[in-house]
Amino acid sequence: MSSRTVHSSNDQETEAKEMDNNGQGERYIHKVSVPPKQKLFKEFTMTVKETFFADDPLRPFKDQSKSRKVVLGVQAIFPILEWSRNYSFKKFRGDIIAGLTIASLCIPQDIGYAKLANLPPQYGLYSSFVPPLIYAIMGSSRDIAIGPVAVVSLLLGTLLQNEIDHTTHPAEYLRLAFTATFFAGITQATLGILRLGFLIDFLSHAAVVGFMGGAAITIALQQLKGFFGIKDFTKKTDIISVMHSVFGSVHHGWNWQTIVIGASFLAFLLVAKYIGKKNKKLFWMPAIAPLISVILSTFLVYITRADEKGVAIVKHLEKGINPSSVNQIYFSGEYLGKGFKIGIVAGMIALTEAIAIGRTFASMKDYTLDGNKEMVALGAMNVVGSMTSCYVATGSFSRSAVNYMAGCNTAVSNIVMSGVVFLTLEFITPLFKYTPNAILSAIIINAVINLIDVQAAILIWKIDKFDFVACMGAFFGVVFSSVEIGLLIAVSISFAKILLQVTRPRTALLGKIPRTTVYRNIQQYPDATKVPGVLIVRVDSAIYFSNSNYVKERILRWLTDEEERIMAADLPAIHYLIVEMSPVTDIDTSGIHALEELYRSLQKREVQLILANPGPVVIDKLHEAKFETLIGDDKIFLTVADAVAACSPKLVEEV
Amino acid sequence: MSSRTVHSSNDQETEAKEMDNNGQGERYIHKVSVPPKQKLFKEFTMTVKETFFADDPLRPFKDQSKSRKVVLGVQAIFPILEWSRNYSFKKFRGDIIAGLTIASLCIPQDIGYAKLANLPPQYGLYSSFVPPLIYAIMGSSRDIAIGPVAVVSLLLGTLLQNEIDHTTHPAEYLRLAFTATFFAGITQATLGILRLGFLIDFLSHAAVVGFMGGAAITIALQQLKGFFGIKDFTKKTDIISVMHSVFGSVHHGWNWQTIVIGASFLAFLLVAKYIGKKNKKLFWMPAIAPLISVILSTFLVYITRADEKGVAIVKHLEKGINPSSVNQIYFSGEYLGKGFKIGIVAGMIALTEAIAIGRTFASMKDYTLDGNKEMVALGAMNVVGSMTSCYVATGSFSRSAVNYMAGCNTAVSNIVMSGVVFLTLEFITPLFKYTPNAILSAIIINAVINLIDVQAAILIWKIDKFDFVACMGAFFGVVFSSVEIGLLIAVSISFAKILLQVTRPRTALLGKIPRTTVYRNIQQYPDATKVPGVLIVRVDSAIYFSNSNYVKERILRWLTDEEERIMAADLPAIHYLIVEMSPVTDIDTSGIHALEELYRSLQKREVQLILANPGPVVIDKLHEAKFETLIGDDKIFLTVADAVAACSPKLVEEV
Repeated sequence: MSSRTVHSSNDQETEAKEMDNNGQGERYIHKVSVPPKQKLFKEFTMTVKETFFADDPLRPFKDQSKSRKVVLGVQAIFPILEWSRNYSFKKFRGDIIAGLTIASLCIPQDIGYAKLANLPPQYGLYSSFVPPLIYAIMGSSRDIAIGPVAVVSLLLGTLLQNEIDHTTHPAEYLRLAFTATFFAGITQATLGILRLGFLIDFLSHAAVVGFMGGAAITIALQQLKGFFGIKDFTKKTDIISVMHSVFGSVHHGWNWQTIVIGASFLAFLLVAKYIGKKNKKLFWMPAIAPLISVILSTFLVYITRADEKGVAIVKHLEKGINPSSVNQIYFSGEYLGKGFKIGIVAGMIALTEAIAIGRTFASMKDYTLDGNKEMVALGAMNVVGSMTSCYVATGSFSRSAVNYMAGCNTAVSNIVMSGVVFLTLEFITPLFKYTPNAILSAIIINAVINLIDVQAAILIWKIDKFDFVACMGAFFGVVFSSVEIGLLIAVSISFAKILLQVTRPRTALLGKIPRTTVYRNIQQYPDATKVPGVLIVRVDSAIYFSNSNYVKERILRWLTDEEERIMAADLPAIHYLIVEMSPVTDIDTSGIHALEELYRSLQKREVQLILANPGPVVIDKLHEAKFETLIGDDKIFLTVADAVAACSPKLVEEV
Repeated sequence: MSSRTVHSSNDQETEAKEMDNNGQGERYIHKVSVPPKQKLFKEFTMTVKETFFADDPLRPFKDQSKSRKVVLGVQAIFPILEWSRNYSFKKFRGDIIAGLTIASLCIPQDIGYAKLANLPPQYGLYSSFVPPLIYAIMGSSRDIAIGPVAVVSLLLGTLLQNEIDHTTHPAEYLRLAFTATFFAGITQATLGILRLGFLIDFLSHAAVVGFMGGAAITIALQQLKGFFGIKDFTKKTDIISVMHSVFGSVHHGWNWQTIVIGASFLAFLLVAKYIGKKNKKLFWMPAIAPLISVILSTFLVYITRADEKGVAIVKHLEKGINPSSVNQIYFSGEYLGKGFKIGIVAGMIALTEAIAIGRTFASMKDYTLDGNKEMVALGAMNVVGSMTSCYVATGSFSRSAVNYMAGCNTAVSNIVMSGVVFLTLEFITPLFKYTPNAILSAIIINAVINLIDVQAAILIWKIDKFDFVACMGAFFGVVFSSVEIGLLIAVSISFAKILLQVTRPRTALLGKIPRTTVYRNIQQYPDATKVPGVLIVRVDSAIYFSNSNYVKERILRWLTDEEERIMAADLPAIHYLIVEMSPVTDIDTSGIHALEELYRSLQKREVQLILANPGPVVIDKLHEAKFETLIGDDKIFLTVADAVAACSPKLVEEV
């Protein structure tokens, strides 16, 4: 470690300076420290830990006996072993109410969502039976409600239909759905095990808001088929094709009985939702309204035999619980690869939704959620699901909210829900025969409306225009083209934003805030004054290969601009350029090259380069590269104020 | 603009504080300003300008008359019109010497490089005739020497050979080469015109060092064929296949006359290089040594008729200048797409090399180079080249260095070189008939050794271990697999580094440096002291969707760790958490959500969240999102010192 003597700012700055000038006192000196050198291996393990184990998952294992470690390890995989020991009747009361409420909500939704995925209706119910049980054992969120969800169902339906037509080859379509579900689970579990959970953070909030909104509109549009009782309906999902289908069949395709049933129950659902929103205590009204609609409308159709007048009904719903589907998964052949690809996409989207829900409720109840552990739980649940005739299940926004409001305490509410679905499958399914499709459409429309978050979009617009572009890009991509295109747009814009941030970091000119020794951005603080003869530039990012040239050239441009202004105003010429390095958290070889080039360019212009407050990593690397020897040991200061004091001593006294 | 009253640190901190405590004086107050609101359109144009026009290319056009603007526009496209007006005889003297020197170096290299690209030798010379002329008219670097280069030749040879075998289908191979060259030029020019030049910054310096080193070794290995006079040689480029070829033919394939000629002239070249390195004045020795070797060895073979004893010779070199190849480019058919793909890759690599060279010499002579303009020049030169039987040309590292040392002043040296190549093609080519291939191999080996930059690799190791992994990944990828794989590894690791930087930003605990009001990283400044009851955390990056969750959880982990330490040591509990936001240059909706969640979590723990020095963009967005209303107007301070003073007033007086 070299010893550099560098001046430091302190409270007695002014006095100290004066004493210094008079040669009477000694000025207090503080060095820019090079941090204690760390061993390579330690540095490496630290980086790996920060990247993959940022949440410090092994903390509870520290200082424990061996047998205790095994117990803790099993508990880590199956959190139910941990929380079930403190389970009480009081908690159970909350869980059973919540479980019954979400069961009443999920049954009609499941049947509808299965249709979105182009699957027979019972597969929706299957997916609400097994996966919630697995999740209850392995998951750590207390509020999430597991089952099929609208967006994933739509996505899966679109992607699968691109490969196999479900009307002509229903058996192969089903097999491919299980294959995709299997690989969705594998993808989710792998991400969790490899601790790559942070990859889902790359889909930005804004992109998700746009994508969800677009998907909601697309789903609602798809429901117009059932709602108007149209028979010839397009297989495309974009708004133009759908509108063409709808209005092309006005005269011969609409069925007025269907429309009457659908519209009146949709109105009922919306009123229930409105009441639930106005009075939080009546939250159960919107939650059970769908089931009431189903019962009422089924009864109505049964007694009026409206199905003979053209009202489409569910007709057939297989009785009994999930059959095994282990043999149905494609483990070879051309569909293996296709299922794999679809699984990755569907698995990632399902994960994004589940983790977002989990985090939201965890932060509301202030418990922490281990994202990677959650992924393993969700993955395991879908792998098991794929072998028991389920398609991709995940956390549902609407049902989780109801679960939370109904007072759930643990994942037991999912077990209760699963039990109700079991009873439904075993005993009640035949009763759904007369349920009109229009009701299912109304229920889905009512559910997905919540996904259109206009408030969030407005906030995004206010806060970050670039985010808004990502949001709208995803939205219009889904609505006007297809779910995949929307998703692609969302991911691309999210990445473009990251790259832009890394390539074009901000820089700012600093000025002195009156009556302080604080130097701040003169754009933010218009009363901050520039120091004559000195240009102070702050670089607001790590200097890496991706931006090193830009940073160098931008600093030189600040200088050129300022010199032009000075020439025009006849002010003292600039002799010092202080680069405030506080925000420069890291630098690489390209960055050091850029600084060297900057130094040489400045030398030619007779301007002295000075650095203020390089951080530990930066000073260490500058030291290794012998940059401080190049510019001079005494050209690195702890604060901008110190650097200014060294360049232009008179100025500090002025204060 | 809301008005927030926030306390500021100043020189008279101590005194002011005391006065404040006595109720006698008024403490000086400075707000954290919200910057003046900018109009949306202005903000948008500013962002676009910073992203695509960071170099302010239209600056000279400002405040000029219309006719002057036209003149300046033409000059911008053809810089020769500008610099030729100040051209003098003195400059010409430097240029002619430099031009003759690089010509003598380029002629033998060109013939060898054409063989690397699996093309007949004259195509190397063609590529040193037309492209340098075009570049001289349109380019703005004064030192770059244009022509075929080793790495691009090897890359092109590998990629083209993957599509068409050059031994069985030489005509189609040649046509695909021109097609690739055409699209390489189009790619380069397009990047320049769309001002996407920053894309090449994404290939990090470290990755380029590794890639170049690996390519140099691969090229040297390829030369063993000519050097040992082996006839059956593998077409693969990895070290294992090549070594297998070399040692598999020890007993029947090596030709001792070839080895003697090759080895002795390689020794001569290396000695010349060593002398040139020791004595900078003798730079011309290594520069003309290759030509001397060619002349001597050709003469030797001619008089000894060594070619009849198995020494392989050039045999045939077409006489005359470049024929047109406009009709040869594939503008349709399956090879259009393949040529397009190869062209993009080769064009990007060629660009990376040319821009790196241009920038290096521009910074040495202190003139600026417009990267985007350069790309247009290089692109135009390759498009014209593809129509005149040239393959991809770019700036050569070795020849540019010779050009610089020989005292070139402008691109006229390229014109001189081009003239010499013209004369060679017209009159001298038949004389190369007896040039032994071993000499060309020796010249190439001698040239590419310079590309192995061990010093740079060592420096990279010292400065940044992650960069070193990228460097070695690219190196071993090229050496043990292939050029494409090495390139893929280089690009992937470069991107991974960017993503890692964005996902896992650094955070640091701050402490007070004794006898100052400066707060710095306690790891870097071990004598900095923590403030009792207060935890100060600095976040070292913009808070975006990609890292917002990590940042939130990392801050909470700092708090948990600290609380554990405090419990153990029986110190006062933490009541305030100050987040130093100086390095947080931007925040998006996800980031604000994370801060809100952080605030809620802290509230549950009875810890007060306080922000210090949010930047202009951040304070603006916090304001829009009403975050300041959430945490309280008086919880945002200009400096950490002010924030500490507010939380724990006694501490400041202690100084």
